[in-house]
Amino acid sequence: MGKNITIIGLGQMGSALALIAAKAGNKVTAVGTPQDKEIIDSCIVNAGRHPRIEEVFPQNVSFAYSDGWRQACEGADYVIGAISSFGVDWFLEEILSVMDTSVPIVSAAKGLVGLDDGSLISYPEYWERALEAKGIKRDIYAIGGPGTAQEIRRGEHTHVAVCGRDADIMKMIKSSLETDTFHISLTHDVHGLESAVAIKNAYALGVSMVIGYSSKNDPDPEHTHCNCQAAAYYQAAKEMVTYLKEEGACQESILIGLGDLYVTVTGARTRKLGILLGEGKSLEEATKILSGMTLESVVIIERLAKAVKTKVAKGQLRKEDFPMLLFVDKVLTQGQVSQLPWKDFTYSEV
Amino acid sequence: MGKNITIIGLGQMGSALALIAAKAGNKVTAVGTPQDKEIIDSCIVNAGRHPRIEEVFPQNVSFAYSDGWRQACEGADYVIGAISSFGVDWFLEEILSVMDTSVPIVSAAKGLVGLDDGSLISYPEYWERALEAKGIKRDIYAIGGPGTAQEIRRGEHTHVAVCGRDADIMKMIKSSLETDTFHISLTHDVHGLESAVAIKNAYALGVSMVIGYSSKNDPDPEHTHCNCQAAAYYQAAKEMVTYLKEEGACQESILIGLGDLYVTVTGARTRKLGILLGEGKSLEEATKILSGMTLESVVIIERLAKAVKTKVAKGQLRKEDFPMLLFVDKVLTQGQVSQLPWKDFTYSEV
Repeated sequence: MGKNITIIGLGQMGSALALIAAKAGNKVTAVGTPQDKEIIDSCIVNAGRHPRIEEVFPQNVSFAYSDGWRQACEGADYVIGAISSFGVDWFLEEILSVMDTSVPIVSAAKGLVGLDDGSLISYPEYWERALEAKGIKRDIYAIGGPGTAQEIRRGEHTHVAVCGRDADIMKMIKSSLETDTFHISLTHDVHGLESAVAIKNAYALGVSMVIGYSSKNDPDPEHTHCNCQAAAYYQAAKEMVTYLKEEGACQESILIGLGDLYVTVTGARTRKLGILLGEGKSLEEATKILSGMTLESVVIIERLAKAVKTKVAKGQLRKEDFPMLLFVDKVLTQGQVSQLPWKDFTYSEV
Repeated sequence: MGKNITIIGLGQMGSALALIAAKAGNKVTAVGTPQDKEIIDSCIVNAGRHPRIEEVFPQNVSFAYSDGWRQACEGADYVIGAISSFGVDWFLEEILSVMDTSVPIVSAAKGLVGLDDGSLISYPEYWERALEAKGIKRDIYAIGGPGTAQEIRRGEHTHVAVCGRDADIMKMIKSSLETDTFHISLTHDVHGLESAVAIKNAYALGVSMVIGYSSKNDPDPEHTHCNCQAAAYYQAAKEMVTYLKEEGACQESILIGLGDLYVTVTGARTRKLGILLGEGKSLEEATKILSGMTLESVVIIERLAKAVKTKVAKGQLRKEDFPMLLFVDKVLTQGQVSQLPWKDFTYSEV
């Protein structure tokens, strides 16, 4: 028995989840944000054709403009908010603050919000707190993990986790969304999971910078620089584990973050930026070369470095445990630094 | 002040360590195994030229044939055994069983020995036990971690760990071997470290098989199959962590293993084999295609699967925690299996 699922936001991830939800046999209503007007126009006029994705939405997906969101959510078993980081406050004010609290909300937004005290929280936590300040009690669920929208749409095997408080609601979300290629784990660890998959972008940049340093010094394409990459991945993983454990993340969330780190280093955008920086380009030059790319890694490094420094000042973390993060932050903020702090990447247990 | 270092075995790793030790300012004596006669011939006649490596040994490296090992070890501050897995028992009987126990021995051999009870131990542990059975008490040290010999020789940044019991001896080894690109950590965790860097070969095959499955189903070279790789890395890391924790490995050793896993999947031999198997080739066909390659991953999977099954039977591990290992073992022993057990790679904490 399919569910009634309303998805708000029809960008890359919203479209991917709409296709998955439809494939899994649900009745899907896709609601555009105010920025998605042309997308909804196209989907309505052209029988499910999105202007920027190849796949065509099947007949069990219907469409609505942003001003019709309230009607589109009536009778929904749950609502997925697939909005970009720019829409976080719009979603809070226009949707969450007025929506019936009995309808579960699942966030597919990725990223962390930096608070004034330096700490980093996930969007679900940010929304829950903001709603509570308005006297609204609502649990917010999330779908997190390494899943590029394009590959989800193509039906490639993908493993994500649904996180939140109520086990029954989470099981309902899982059973309604999973397909033979879309695999879903369940965890209560919202903060740990969302933190892990966000900070991996910072460390993917660190590991990629090591590749850039090495390939600049030795540009022979046959030389794959395995040793230094392994050393860099080790250090990145160690810093991620140290930070995430202090944040109370559970082991599964940490390991999902490490898998995401692996694939982000072997993958696209963050790797390219890291290699350019490692080769000696400034952030300005590198950003110019990569114009048009979203450089989420730069934002997260700044926020994470601030968070770590605050925790160091409070005695909750030790500065010497984060040589890679602090080095990368220095490169981004102060320009190129000549040498990676390799000796700081070793340890002694004797 | 340099040390007197004797290295037994002048294959790829022995040669790399001889070059590093010489570069670090030590007096090095390189002793061939009985299989290395032609190598020693060449080094002596051609002023330090090894027949199979590009680099030339500098003047502070001298050479000796295997029958001169005893004289070559006289006055040595320590001896490095850089022998292949085929020389393990030769090294035990001919060298370790008769050598002065006051001279520290460091093993650079990689791999694990499977005992009759199914457990896996490192070569240093294997040798220590065998010597103890002969009434000889000796601590054996090891150098472990992700370091390909070729890159160590080229002077690429490399992070290894020296492990063993006596802190002073380990510090002496570290200070004598480290250079501006060869970085050394110290740990007492011999078993954990050697286990981590050995079993990563099994899991690199598992992750590579996932890549092979995906690229067979969707051969478009633009499609990088990020989602399934991240999912596979997560599962591999989880199984490694579960096994290694049960073996008592410390966190640093586990993370070194995860860095080694990352680089082995992005690297050469094991990846190629995994992709061929994932594409549907049998082990026999794949081995034929890769003729001449050492397929250490196949050996370690067999041993690790046996070890895990034994521990499952004893109630020390749970079978359901190792779906990737047991699947890969099944593919190797029973031929191609149609589907990866994707649903077993998910978890529920609720």
